[in-house]
Amino acid sequence: MRITKEQNERLTRVEGDAPMGQVFRRYWIPALLAEEVPEPDCPPVRVRLLGEDLVAFRDSNGEVGLLDAYCSHRRAPLFFGRNEECGLRCVYHGWKFDVNGNCLDTPSEEPGTRLRFRAGIKAYPVFEAGGIIWTYMGPVDTMPEPPDYEWLRAPATHRGVSKTNEACNFLQAIEGGIDTAHSSFAHNNDLSNTKSLRALDRHPKLEVELQPHGFTYASLRRIGGGRKYLRVYQFAMPFMQIRSVLLSWHGQGEDAEYPALHGHIWVPIDDVTTAIYNFAYSARPEQPMPPNWFAEHEVEMGRGPQDFKPGTYWLVREPANDFMIDREVQRTRTFTGIEGVNTQDFAIQTGMGAIVDRSKEALGSTDLAISTARKLLLEATDRAERGEPMLGAAPEDHRNTRAADLLIAEGDAWREVSKDLQSAWY
Amino acid sequence: MRITKEQNERLTRVEGDAPMGQVFRRYWIPALLAEEVPEPDCPPVRVRLLGEDLVAFRDSNGEVGLLDAYCSHRRAPLFFGRNEECGLRCVYHGWKFDVNGNCLDTPSEEPGTRLRFRAGIKAYPVFEAGGIIWTYMGPVDTMPEPPDYEWLRAPATHRGVSKTNEACNFLQAIEGGIDTAHSSFAHNNDLSNTKSLRALDRHPKLEVELQPHGFTYASLRRIGGGRKYLRVYQFAMPFMQIRSVLLSWHGQGEDAEYPALHGHIWVPIDDVTTAIYNFAYSARPEQPMPPNWFAEHEVEMGRGPQDFKPGTYWLVREPANDFMIDREVQRTRTFTGIEGVNTQDFAIQTGMGAIVDRSKEALGSTDLAISTARKLLLEATDRAERGEPMLGAAPEDHRNTRAADLLIAEGDAWREVSKDLQSAWY
Amino acid sequence: MRITKEQNERLTRVEGDAPMGQVFRRYWIPALLAEEVPEPDCPPVRVRLLGEDLVAFRDSNGEVGLLDAYCSHRRAPLFFGRNEECGLRCVYHGWKFDVNGNCLDTPSEEPGTRLRFRAGIKAYPVFEAGGIIWTYMGPVDTMPEPPDYEWLRAPATHRGVSKTNEACNFLQAIEGGIDTAHSSFAHNNDLSNTKSLRALDRHPKLEVELQPHGFTYASLRRIGGGRKYLRVYQFAMPFMQIRSVLLSWHGQGEDAEYPALHGHIWVPIDDVTTAIYNFAYSARPEQPMPPNWFAEHEVEMGRGPQDFKPGTYWLVREPANDFMIDREVQRTRTFTGIEGVNTQDFAIQTGMGAIVDRSKEALGSTDLAISTARKLLLEATDRAERGEPMLGAAPEDHRNTRAADLLIAEGDAWREVSKDLQSAWY
Repeated sequence: MRITKEQNERLTRVEGDAPMGQVFRRYWIPALLAEEVPEPDCPPVRVRLLGEDLVAFRDSNGEVGLLDAYCSHRRAPLFFGRNEECGLRCVYHGWKFDVNGNCLDTPSEEPGTRLRFRAGIKAYPVFEAGGIIWTYMGPVDTMPEPPDYEWLRAPATHRGVSKTNEACNFLQAIEGGIDTAHSSFAHNNDLSNTKSLRALDRHPKLEVELQPHGFTYASLRRIGGGRKYLRVYQFAMPFMQIRSVLLSWHGQGEDAEYPALHGHIWVPIDDVTTAIYNFAYSARPEQPMPPNWFAEHEVEMGRGPQDFKPGTYWLVREPANDFMIDREVQRTRTFTGIEGVNTQDFAIQTGMGAIVDRSKEALGSTDLAISTARKLLLEATDRAERGEPMLGAAPEDHRNTRAADLLIAEGDAWREVSKDLQSAWY
Repeated sequence: MRITKEQNERLTRVEGDAPMGQVFRRYWIPALLAEEVPEPDCPPVRVRLLGEDLVAFRDSNGEVGLLDAYCSHRRAPLFFGRNEECGLRCVYHGWKFDVNGNCLDTPSEEPGTRLRFRAGIKAYPVFEAGGIIWTYMGPVDTMPEPPDYEWLRAPATHRGVSKTNEACNFLQAIEGGIDTAHSSFAHNNDLSNTKSLRALDRHPKLEVELQPHGFTYASLRRIGGGRKYLRVYQFAMPFMQIRSVLLSWHGQGEDAEYPALHGHIWVPIDDVTTAIYNFAYSARPEQPMPPNWFAEHEVEMGRGPQDFKPGTYWLVREPANDFMIDREVQRTRTFTGIEGVNTQDFAIQTGMGAIVDRSKEALGSTDLAISTARKLLLEATDRAERGEPMLGAAPEDHRNTRAADLLIAEGDAWREVSKDLQSAWY
Repeated sequence: MRITKEQNERLTRVEGDAPMGQVFRRYWIPALLAEEVPEPDCPPVRVRLLGEDLVAFRDSNGEVGLLDAYCSHRRAPLFFGRNEECGLRCVYHGWKFDVNGNCLDTPSEEPGTRLRFRAGIKAYPVFEAGGIIWTYMGPVDTMPEPPDYEWLRAPATHRGVSKTNEACNFLQAIEGGIDTAHSSFAHNNDLSNTKSLRALDRHPKLEVELQPHGFTYASLRRIGGGRKYLRVYQFAMPFMQIRSVLLSWHGQGEDAEYPALHGHIWVPIDDVTTAIYNFAYSARPEQPMPPNWFAEHEVEMGRGPQDFKPGTYWLVREPANDFMIDREVQRTRTFTGIEGVNTQDFAIQTGMGAIVDRSKEALGSTDLAISTARKLLLEATDRAERGEPMLGAAPEDHRNTRAADLLIAEGDAWREVSKDLQSAWY
């Protein structure tokens, strides 16, 4: 399916009344990491979602509030506010709001005034799970139960979560994430190794199956010896990918294998900026992950402590410095010459421009998952306009979903052999 | 009165033909500080007013010119021009202009040419007073006599003047300036002091009285003991605030009190940028201010020599660094955690966005002065459109205006007791 | 002729379907310096022409390709691509393109796929000469033979070429270049010297003659003693100036004179950015230029190695730092106080704003060449719209063109005495 310019607009724009923004408002979406508001009465932080400016804070009781960025009185920025005594107090005139947006105090007015009852501000409901503060920004009457992805049930010892911002539209970031084929190229970080599973077959066969959570897509690579390398991925509407990986751990005096699941959630900050939440968790409830595994994984992805601009979720490697591409490394050692697996993705995705023009594409057979995501997202804009239920929004739609990664025999039916692996263990 | 989106546009836009720009063009307004063109034949400087690009220079005779930024010939930038022999000479082809915009010389043309008589450029009249170069950018036939605010008559030994640029629309800067209530909050720089006059009553009662110069507004705080703390402020149309302060001076081997008057003038550079002129002067013609008092006052306000980006009127504390807010200081010592009294204002005002959306406000009783300013400014746009005289523009409208600050008895009528104090002493 | 706002738009806009963009697409124009792609399989470089984003690379055989900046598959940026084995390979999925835009390989798809036959991308023809990669971006059926300016036939020992980017529209840069009068002012770098040929008469008489390549313009300065100083310049449509200079060489143990020709080509990167190609060559085929002459010339022009931001064609002296104008130098030594002859031009041209408003000019007699260029360029937009041949586009139109610079007797007819000098010697 070729995407028209009109469809491209509909698929990508999320600000104001844009249809895709209304789609996102029908789901619980990540607003910030829990670590951004680490403790009661810590400083408030700016949050921008779907082009809307908000402020988040954790009150004295540990409750998180996600409010309009501006005070109801004269629109002063609540970011500079004082987070104290169960409320966020504006520094302009001391008006104070609780996590639900109720105005608790208007000290610049006479004590008896009832002004505060018409001075409440917009507050979005939040839900804290998996190290993320989730929010629901849509109509109250269509609000689903909070999300229940399997990894949200994994204990902190079994999982890790992080965030990176990216300067392009969310959809081209998603399309990079759910594109399995590019890993044989963009992420080939050892040109001399022609024996890796992904190098053995660089044009995987793709199959897609619609699901209550969105869709499953499987890539099948012929690796010889009568075997195939099967990867079963999940795309949970409207923005999450889950994949299975095998962590071979050679550190900490230990030499072991840890089956794990990884994923990303792509959240539109606005039309041209995306927040990416990265998560990973042990595939086995009985097996916590080794210490430091997540920190080391982050370094490999290009998200180590040195990779961020201090105090932000923005990477040092960025368009302005061509992601520090090293052409000699590219010539001799890695396919891109860019350090960091996800940094490689960012170079490609942001290099397309803020919003890629899909009307000019020439899609191939490996773009099937991408086409499917577009189709479901376009359908979702129609559903949202008609007020219909959204695919994957209810917890039962996605509760049981996980990914798989295994070798199968040539004749095996992938759906059958991976069936058990695709089902939650937590 | 709730401001509609249309009224908000009318109140804030000043570029091109915008109605509020036409209001400002009916008054003498500050164009630059005299210190920016300190001596004859010094380098020219860029000036931007109401979205219009100009160049200012002081000629060999000490006269200041304020001209179109571009040469009449081929629109080369006169900023790079040579200020010499009573004129500003364009570096492109040597054409030369005097302070009135007359073209004096076109040396790239034949000597006898009359070309220069059709090569004059736009020049605005200027008037130098109080350390400021004032200009009038409106129709000649409605030009009032030059301004005659009391502080312009104070000798240099009795006054100080400075400038700061701010990255937001002028009106939200004005509204911050004439808002007396916020000083009990935003400018509370000693959280432990609950006995200051402003802390004793944080919800002052406001009264407003229209005047030929604009309006007087008084804040009354009940401080116990049968007394009230009265502050009488002036708002001179379309952009000036005057207030009274008591400088307790503990320096220079001296321990004394200096009654003084302070004020700001907010001048629109363009729709989203404002130049703020700050002035202060001794309340008593017989009492010069102590040495260094103004320099020390500027440091307290956040405008000391270290606070500016070198060679500019822009502060180092700015939106890009969150005004260097110190959350620990905010938690324990000051209400905002931001250093510098006016820097606190800037954080709040620029944090509202370039032009705040007033249609979303919930005004309280302490916003009376602000509502009045809006009302007068909206009326002024109507007056300008009808070509009527403007409130406060004639020197007799504002010549006698000053502010007051005193303790009064509960039963006192504030207008009566402050009457003498509100009248010029110079 | 006064230029209307509409004509100004027509004269300056080059992006998308703008008429002037279509004019440039009817000529061979410089796309980049050959030194930017110095050797086979070197890193690809970004090129932007007429608002269109491209990528250039030199393949394993030394052929240069100039392609759409984005891969045909999913619009990944080819800038990050691998230049290897006679093609540029996209790092996203390994698709590979040759210098003609043919897709050679789609390794993420099944080996037998015919997908590549519909995956070719836009490629513009290139022609390498004079140290420049030229391209033709217009319709194939109107493509002229490659350019054959005399200097393209000068051997490398006889010529030099360089590039600088400038942040303004191409036309005000051209108008600065073909304006002979300003050199007596803007480029007067020795205020004490009142005896130079250009200082002796600062209002040259201009004459213009239309030519197949565009037009010739002559400036005549009366220098006394019964003699005139004649400079004969060429403007080759749509963007090139050629002038004659006498290089007095006092270096390398040698004291000699080298007659030479200099010129610029102004190429629109987009509406508000211009690439300027600077060339110079020996007037005599039998006389190579002295070693280092071009490097020294570049320093004088303001384009020495220290003058550029590392790794770019952007100058360190720029609008953000007022071109490092030194007002004391301007007062005492040079007319502008800005270092570098062409940097002086840049200060003036960019200081006019991105696109100067020509409807506000007051042209004089020395602006005749500029008026002529505008007239020819406006005519060219009409010709392009009607599909007619373009002035100066065919090699025979410009092959024989060169400039002259000489002293003549008062009574001499300049066309006659300079006739031989205006004809190519190579």
